[in-house]
Amino acid sequence: MTERVDGRKLRYVHRRGEMLRAATEHALDHGLEDLTLRKVAQAVGVSHATLVHHFTTKEQLITEIVEGVLAETLAVPDLPLDHPDPLREVWRRATGAEGRRHIKLFAAIIAQAVYGDPVLRKAVASSMRQRTQLIADGLVLRGCPRTSAQPIATSVLAAVRGLLVDLITTGDEERVNAAFEDAVTELERRLAELPGQGA
Amino acid sequence: MTERVDGRKLRYVHRRGEMLRAATEHALDHGLEDLTLRKVAQAVGVSHATLVHHFTTKEQLITEIVEGVLAETLAVPDLPLDHPDPLREVWRRATGAEGRRHIKLFAAIIAQAVYGDPVLRKAVASSMRQRTQLIADGLVLRGCPRTSAQPIATSVLAAVRGLLVDLITTGDEERVNAAFEDAVTELERRLAELPGQGA
Repeated sequence: MTERVDGRKLRYVHRRGEMLRAATEHALDHGLEDLTLRKVAQAVGVSHATLVHHFTTKEQLITEIVEGVLAETLAVPDLPLDHPDPLREVWRRATGAEGRRHIKLFAAIIAQAVYGDPVLRKAVASSMRQRTQLIADGLVLRGCPRTSAQPIATSVLAAVRGLLVDLITTGDEERVNAAFEDAVTELERRLAELPGQGA
Repeated sequence: MTERVDGRKLRYVHRRGEMLRAATEHALDHGLEDLTLRKVAQAVGVSHATLVHHFTTKEQLITEIVEGVLAETLAVPDLPLDHPDPLREVWRRATGAEGRRHIKLFAAIIAQAVYGDPVLRKAVASSMRQRTQLIADGLVLRGCPRTSAQPIATSVLAAVRGLLVDLITTGDEERVNAAFEDAVTELERRLAELPGQGA
């Protein structure tokens, strides 16, 4: 077992991971605005000194929370590129209770990023580009020409993000779900009309 | 002149409007997080007491700022419903320097709304529904059936909001503009294929 090799180091790693998870839970519940090392320490049940020892600054802790949340939001872990219906799967997951908590925090991250926090902005930008590239690759697999794949991927991702924000602010489940379904159906129609995709 | 009728009342009204405009400018520059009555009073050049006299609480001031910004964002004042190319006009305006400042503050408003500020959430929800209805009405004018107009309007608005957020966080002008152009072209194609719209 690895644990026997260097127990002390591993406990350190576990403890740091636990603290990060607890701090992320705190952010998912309350947003970033209320996130101080002191409050997180209290929520996690460690001393302020311990938290500072592991994360040094509030900024470092927030950066790690953000990277984790961006990786989770609008992503389905292990969703294969050739999944038959990836967008509806992403939507199903994102509109569930856990997904909505992530969307809320995502909104808070965006707000903080656009008001000039350069570390957050870089993390958000890189996450958006990666996610767009993933969708573009999936479209190419479905026969979409490379030149169209990037604009389509960019606007599909923008529409999904925008619809999720509409959903969590208005709570209009029926209107927003109908809009998502309409948009996916249109995309499917467009992809089906590509040369070589005929029935 | 009206000013002669009740100069005192009018000065009061003017002064309140000026303060609100100055406070909105402060929010556009710095976001909502940093918005305290004390800082706004300083930025506006009035006493804290004067600001409290006019707006009572920070929440009241924020509500009024938000209502103004939501009315401005993603809207072109006096854009007629039968404008030949309303979406590109909205996009042109929103991606300009002044538009981007509004989008940033809009992102901050959304973040604060989703973390449970009920007044903000209500303002955002009502603004989203109104804006959606306006687009849906425009689509119906162009021959779109009422049943399709609402889902299309909902996802068009979501896509535009999502693309603007992509643009201000990544700065990828070329990729995002191409996505917008692709989405509008697809929408135009869809509307042109409606029964009775043939060439």
